[in-house]
Parts: sequence; structure tokens; C-alpha cells
Amino acid sequence: MTVTPSSLSESSLDTFALAAGFQTAATACGLKPSGNLDLGLVWSEGPCSAAGVFTTNRVQAAPVHVCRETLAAAAGRVRGVLYNSGCANAVTGERGLVDARRMRELGAEAIGAKPDELLVLSTGVIGKFLDMEKLARGVTALRSHSALRSAGDAARAIMTTDTRAKLAFSPLTLPGGRATIAGFAKGAGMIHPNMATMLSVITTDARLEPARLDRCLREAVELSFNRISVDGDMSTNDTVLVLASGASGTVVDDAGEPEFTDALTDVCASLARQIARDGEGATRLVELRITGGATERQAHRVGDAIACSPLVKTAIHGNDPNWGRILAAAGYSGEAIEPERVGLWFGDGDVQLLDRGLPVVFDAARASSLLRQDPAIIHLDLGLGSGSAVVWTCDFSAEYVRINADYTT
Amino acid sequence: MTVTPSSLSESSLDTFALAAGFQTAATACGLKPSGNLDLGLVWSEGPCSAAGVFTTNRVQAAPVHVCRETLAAAAGRVRGVLYNSGCANAVTGERGLVDARRMRELGAEAIGAKPDELLVLSTGVIGKFLDMEKLARGVTALRSHSALRSAGDAARAIMTTDTRAKLAFSPLTLPGGRATIAGFAKGAGMIHPNMATMLSVITTDARLEPARLDRCLREAVELSFNRISVDGDMSTNDTVLVLASGASGTVVDDAGEPEFTDALTDVCASLARQIARDGEGATRLVELRITGGATERQAHRVGDAIACSPLVKTAIHGNDPNWGRILAAAGYSGEAIEPERVGLWFGDGDVQLLDRGLPVVFDAARASSLLRQDPAIIHLDLGLGSGSAVVWTCDFSAEYVRINADYTT
Repeated sequence: MTVTPSSLSESSLDTFALAAGFQTAATACGLKPSGNLDLGLVWSEGPCSAAGVFTTNRVQAAPVHVCRETLAAAAGRVRGVLYNSGCANAVTGERGLVDARRMRELGAEAIGAKPDELLVLSTGVIGKFLDMEKLARGVTALRSHSALRSAGDAARAIMTTDTRAKLAFSPLTLPGGRATIAGFAKGAGMIHPNMATMLSVITTDARLEPARLDRCLREAVELSFNRISVDGDMSTNDTVLVLASGASGTVVDDAGEPEFTDALTDVCASLARQIARDGEGATRLVELRITGGATERQAHRVGDAIACSPLVKTAIHGNDPNWGRILAAAGYSGEAIEPERVGLWFGDGDVQLLDRGLPVVFDAARASSLLRQDPAIIHLDLGLGSGSAVVWTCDFSAEYVRINADYTT
Repeated sequence: MTVTPSSLSESSLDTFALAAGFQTAATACGLKPSGNLDLGLVWSEGPCSAAGVFTTNRVQAAPVHVCRETLAAAAGRVRGVLYNSGCANAVTGERGLVDARRMRELGAEAIGAKPDELLVLSTGVIGKFLDMEKLARGVTALRSHSALRSAGDAARAIMTTDTRAKLAFSPLTLPGGRATIAGFAKGAGMIHPNMATMLSVITTDARLEPARLDRCLREAVELSFNRISVDGDMSTNDTVLVLASGASGTVVDDAGEPEFTDALTDVCASLARQIARDGEGATRLVELRITGGATERQAHRVGDAIACSPLVKTAIHGNDPNWGRILAAAGYSGEAIEPERVGLWFGDGDVQLLDRGLPVVFDAARASSLLRQDPAIIHLDLGLGSGSAVVWTCDFSAEYVRINADYTT
């Protein structure tokens, strides 16, 4: 795996487009009291290959159950995805399942698909039933001329506490020709390595079988959405869906799979970083580069412990080079690190703070200015092997910060 | 085990006293730039039984190493403990160990003990060497008439970001007579189930062997200091020490051990609750009562996940009965809960929010007012067995809160 994340450009709402073969519609059906966009539909004229990765929370929302059931029943062939914000349809029991299946039917009808050819996503408050009347009226509106058709609007309709839409795309050249991967995501609070209230819809015009798409998606998610943390929480609704229209005619076969997976990973990682940067109250992205792990898993777990530490994140917010908190978090990660082998740097190797477990005299002003960067880069080398992982998080602002950020001074 | 914690009265600084047979001294030696008390000594004229429980962080501070080494070498017989705030003597390598041993010698000299009869504790910034000159002058001051002799001052000298001293005592009557347990603690940020930057010195005038004392302490810590969380972090220095002078003449034998352990647990739990209530930025204590676990360990782990959830804690701060976040945290605890069996109440059974996994219509104003209580009591029943655990935490205030606390409204 690569330690340096790709520098994918993040497109603007106006020019954003999904992959060829996909259409979008969005509307405000009143599920959000604010009147903002809260219902969206992404679909293809023909059948797509589809794959999904879902929350590992023991409490799973109705749409998660229905997505799993749909993918299984349709053997990974669907026509699109209907999604709403404003209500998560989670902890809603049997009625929630009935509502999610009805939502699936409504969406399928809207695009002339069979009832089991559509996926559904919901996000918002937990424990409330979907208002099916509003939803039905909304789906009708999606079919009308008044619906918003831009992909940017489709991306906005999925937002909850997000302060901006999350968009990413990647062109790719395969042995068989060219193709595109493009998608959007939402997520702000409740984000943890295992993809907390985090929804993403990714499209591609490449042609590949559902089983291959599923394999590529799992690998991409492991290196992207599973490597971010905003507040350590994980939601009941997290879902990443990818749909392949095949519209480009470019086939992904064994030879092209690694390249396709890399491009999909880039798109997912870009969306994941946008989610982390937009963490509630965050002012910057933090990139934790963990190297020298006995295994990649060890590096990931150490990065995770640091990413979830409120003390580390408040120190970063205060531009305070309090490396002791970073080392302490690594120490309680559950991994058998050896403190006397650890090296620590801020920036891209710019300032070293620890050398074989001992403090190095460093330029505090320079170290502080590196924490002010976006992203703030922290590199911890465990000195045990060649396992590495990048984990993304954000800083923590707040009154909590006013107390914590000045502790060493 | 009992689910309702004991209601031990928390004594005031003026009237606070340690157990018979112990003396205290405190001074300000300049380790804290503020000029506040930063050096304390608790000692007994004769040898004490002693036991300690230490951080499980892989990165352990020099005084932790030296305490372990002292307890082993002295076979659990010591004369007292010297402690400083303002510098943690952590991540200081060989020099840190030399300094901690020198600190031990200085303290031992001050009370006429052998060099290996003293325990040492340090708390404060990580990665800085102890200023041994200041420390030596401070220890000299502790022996002079100008030193402060009250137990309350000794408790203040251990504080860092604490807004108040943490004190607890418990009288107890054993088959062999009466005795007392009394102690103090510090801790504010970096507090996690496994006893993060948390120091505690507990004294008793009961007479018992080091091995028995060690057993009682481990049991007490498991149900107290290991059941609190402020921000999920765990420090390099956490230590709980207990010293038994035997001055009361009351022997703790097999018959008296359960009672002694209960009283020690009460003292530890009171100190733990005071630490949680004084979490940085906290406005109230939160008591999580988890019942119906398949095992006690399961109940504890579910409580722990809830206690560490910033989303739950911000909702409590905002008096927002957002039970979805509580259920979501239980769901990602790693324990195999069954959502359809879960019951949830606020207060002492006052308002039910979930019944067998489904939302109950409840009085939102009343539920909100229960979260406003100190402690705010949350009771989650897992419906799986008879395992139970109480976990304490605090609310989360901050800008982070302003975003999170209003999410359902």
C-alpha cells in the first residue's frame, strides 16, 4: 500500500457529473423542517452491477437491511438508488422495514424498474418513522420537470450536518479503454473508522461483474472510509454503494482490476478526507502517517487510537506540539509498541520530535506552524517492521479545547 | 456486585484527615510556574503494607517503573510516598529513571527511611526532565516548619488541571474492631476506564499483609477507577497506591476481608466519581447503569462505549433525550447485543425511552429534565442475562456541543 494519499482534485458543485449512463434528480419533500433538499435519486437506463459495504454496528437501520436483501435477491444487478435525509429510519422495527421496502417500490416505479431493482439509503434522526406520505409526494416530484437534475443537487440532497457537499471523480485508462469513476458522500458527526453516519453513492461507466465490483469496493473502503475518524462514533446507517453502468464499454477484467481498484480507492479516499475535514467543528484535516508497524493492521490500530484521542485533537487545534499525547495514545492502542523504538515527525519529515523514544530538541514555533497546515501531517514510525497505514481525522475545537490546548504552556 | 453506588459523603478540605498513623506535608517548589503547591509527602512513622495498581499504557513513566521496582524489592513494605505535580517525568528514558530513583532517595532521607522504602508519583507535562534542584530544595522545605501539614494541602499539591481536590474516607467496623480508610486523588483530562492521568493515594489504619492489601485494591479499582471515562484517553502515569499503617490495631483477616474490600471500593468509587464530575469542561456527573448483560464484562464494555461517545455526552450536555446515540454506541461496543431486547430509561426508572428495542412515546420535557440532574442517570438493560456494571462519565460542553446538542431539534 502507498502511504502518500493521492492528490485528487475535488470538483465543484456546478461542474460535477456522475459517470456516463447515470441520471440524477433531487427535491425537497419536507422530511427536513428546514425545507432544504432531502430526497435524491441516482439511476441508470439499463441494469447496473452494484456492490455495497455496510455498517458493522449491531444496530442496523431498516434501509441497511433492505439494501443487503436487495443486493442478494438481485444478484448485484440494480437500476439505481433512492435516498433521503432528515430521517434515518433506524430503530423502527418491523414498520421501518415495511417503510424501507415501500420506499424501494416507489423509487423503482419512478424509473420503470422492477421493485427489487432499487437500493435505498436514509440518514438523519434515529428512532422516527419515515413520513411515507411526504416521501411518496417527493418521489412523484422527482419524476416531474420541476425536479433538480444536476449531480451537484443530488449530492446536496444527501447532506445532514455537512457544511459542504463531498464530491470526487477519477478518470482511468484500462487495457480495454477509458472509463470514469465519480461519486458523492455525506457525513459529519458520528464518523469512525468503520464508516459511521456516512453514506456514499459512487458510479462508474466501466463494465464489470458484481462479484468483481464487490471485491474492488471492499479493498477500496478498507483503505479509505475505514481510515477516518471524527469523533469515534459509528452509526446504524453507514453505507457505501457503487453502481457500474458499463456505458463506456470499457471492460474491467483481471488485467485491469488492480488499476480500477486503485482509482476507486482514490475516489473513496478523497471522499473520506472531505468527510474528515468537514467533521463537526473541525478547522483542518489531520493526516496520520504510521510506518514501521509489525503489520499493516498494527499501524492502522495505532493510527486509529491517535485519531480518536480528544487530547491529541485539541492539541492540534491549539497548534500545540504536545507530542506526549500522541505517544500516550499509541501506548494505549492495545498494540505492543516499543516506546524506545518510536520516531515522530510533524509535516513531511520537516520537524523531528522523538528519536528512538526520546525527546529531540526542536523548533517549537516551526512545529506549531506545521500543525496549523491543512492537512496537518503527523508521522509516527514504530520501528518494528514495514507495516504502514494512513489514517485521517480532524482537529477538535471548543471550550474543551480552551482547557486542553494550553496545558503544556 | 451492586448497581447502585454508595452515597459516601465527600469531605471538605478543612476537615479532611488521612487514616491514623499518617502524616503529611506539602510545599510549592517551583515545578508549577503558577507557584501553586506542587510537592507533597505522605508518610508513616513505622513500616506500612503497601499495594499499587498502575497504568496499562505501553508507555510508562519513570515513577511507575520505580514504584513497581520498589514494591517488589521491599516486598510491599514501605514508609510513604513522595509526589510532585507540574512534571510527569514520562518519556524521559534512562535519565528519567535515575531522577525518579533520586527523588525516592530524597524523600526517604526526609523521613529517615531506607532509600527503597518510599514510593514516588509524578504528574504534569510529558517529555520534560524533572528539575532535580527545585525538587531537592522542595524536599528540604517539606522537612521544615514552614511546610503545610494539613491533609487538605497534601491533596491540593497533587492537582494539575483539577478544579477541586478529590477526597474520600470511610469508617468501617470489622470483627476485630474499627478502622478507617481515607485518601485523595487527582485527574481531569486524559481519564479512561484504565485509570488515565489519574493518581490516588489512599491510607488505612487497618492492619493487613501486603498480599491481602494488593488483592483488595485490585478488586476495588476494577469497580471504581476502571469504570470512569472523561475523554477516552489513558495516560502514562496512572497509579493508585494504598498504604496500611496498622495504627488502629484492627486486623483484616479472611473474615474481615470482604467488608474491608467493600469500604475500599466505596472510597475508590467516590474518588472516581469526583474525577469524572471534574472532567475538563464538564458540568455534571453521568451514571450509566448497564444491566441484563450476558456477563458483567459485557455490561462493562457496553457502558464503556457509551461513556466514551462524544455524541452521547454532548447530547447530555444539551439535555437532549437523543437515545439513538446511546443505542448506536451500545451497538458498536464490540459486544453482541440484540437490539430487539434492549430497554432504556432515564433517571431511576423514571422515564422509559425504549422497550424491547422500540421507541416508547415519552414525555420529552421530563426526559430532558432528568438529563439535567447531577448525576444524570441512564439505565440500559440488554435483556440477555444478569451481568451488570455501573460506569461513570461526564457531559461534554463546547462549540462541538453547539453543533451536536441540537441535532434532533
